[in-house]
Amino acid sequence: MLKLFYAPDSCARAVHIALEEAGAAYEGVPMSLASGDQRTPDYLAINPKGRVPALVTEQGVLTETPAILTYIAQRYPDSALALPADPFGLAQIQSFNLYLCATLHVAHAHKLRGTRWADDPAAIAEMRRKVPESVGACFALIENTLFRGPWVMGETFTICDPYLFVFAEWMEGDGVDSARFPKVLGHRKRMAERPAVARANAARG
Amino acid sequence: MLKLFYAPDSCARAVHIALEEAGAAYEGVPMSLASGDQRTPDYLAINPKGRVPALVTEQGVLTETPAILTYIAQRYPDSALALPADPFGLAQIQSFNLYLCATLHVAHAHKLRGTRWADDPAAIAEMRRKVPESVGACFALIENTLFRGPWVMGETFTICDPYLFVFAEWMEGDGVDSARFPKVLGHRKRMAERPAVARANAARG
Repeated sequence: MLKLFYAPDSCARAVHIALEEAGAAYEGVPMSLASGDQRTPDYLAINPKGRVPALVTEQGVLTETPAILTYIAQRYPDSALALPADPFGLAQIQSFNLYLCATLHVAHAHKLRGTRWADDPAAIAEMRRKVPESVGACFALIENTLFRGPWVMGETFTICDPYLFVFAEWMEGDGVDSARFPKVLGHRKRMAERPAVARANAARG
Repeated sequence: MLKLFYAPDSCARAVHIALEEAGAAYEGVPMSLASGDQRTPDYLAINPKGRVPALVTEQGVLTETPAILTYIAQRYPDSALALPADPFGLAQIQSFNLYLCATLHVAHAHKLRGTRWADDPAAIAEMRRKVPESVGACFALIENTLFRGPWVMGETFTICDPYLFVFAEWMEGDGVDSARFPKVLGHRKRMAERPAVARANAARG
């Protein structure tokens, strides 16, 4: 059975939702990042990166949210997460999730994880100050260019949807005026109504 | 025919090498980031992110290096880039490339692209100061944990190899003592000897 190491309010939530969408049998292991659960020797033996999520499979451990999402979609091809067989269609899904991972999530991380890239408290405060602008610019690109509707890729629900949803729920906390992004807000509302999201919410404790 | 928009000393070089490894027919379009080629209206119509690489295919434009690398590998399944059919094997490749994209490349970007995350020149200078440490920590994880040898994934060459190669060539420029990472250096040497790399080097001008 799959085992998911996650933190309730981290991007691992996207994987949690995807497992529910897929109807997967899995065990969830909640971690407290504030308590440093991700840096214990036991956990570092599972994921030397000291981050969440980590998905333990029969074949080994997988890390990095977009890679795990693709794995789940391929493992449960008859679920709502089914991937297109066409390489270009798959690449578009990967490309969107990579933008979330490497640009939007990175912009967001400058709010609370500035010590990854600076030590001086003034520099860390300056990074935090700019988060509403940098995260807002990402949502503007998504709203105006990348998002098709009603789901990220258009008519078909994909692994892009739970991933966008997690970041969209963080918008106001990031100081972004969500009213600027009605398409993203509509998507967030549609996502929140899905039974899989309710189940993931109930399970995260 | 595929068309690759790239900058000679950007991560787009990994795509350039992959196209050569695949034996693809493509046209390369060099861009000067220093001159702002990536922000011209013509280019923004191709890639609204204003970044490189962008790969123009018969079906549309693809962005984000790991997604493009996977697309090339799937488009040329009989080449040196062939992907494993097994979802777990594919996920391991994606996971490695995601680490390069979202952690190592992001750490590196704090050297010259600090304005993405701060405006204050002192904060930008502080980010730049920490690059040898943060990039070095990424290479330590690769050297000690992720890299299998002789290629990233072991005996089989994959799309992880050209991508790692690009960042490995930037190590000294990032202020990292490359002597700490003999496995990565050995890989860099093996990569530099590949005919596809020589062809990509010749083509980049």
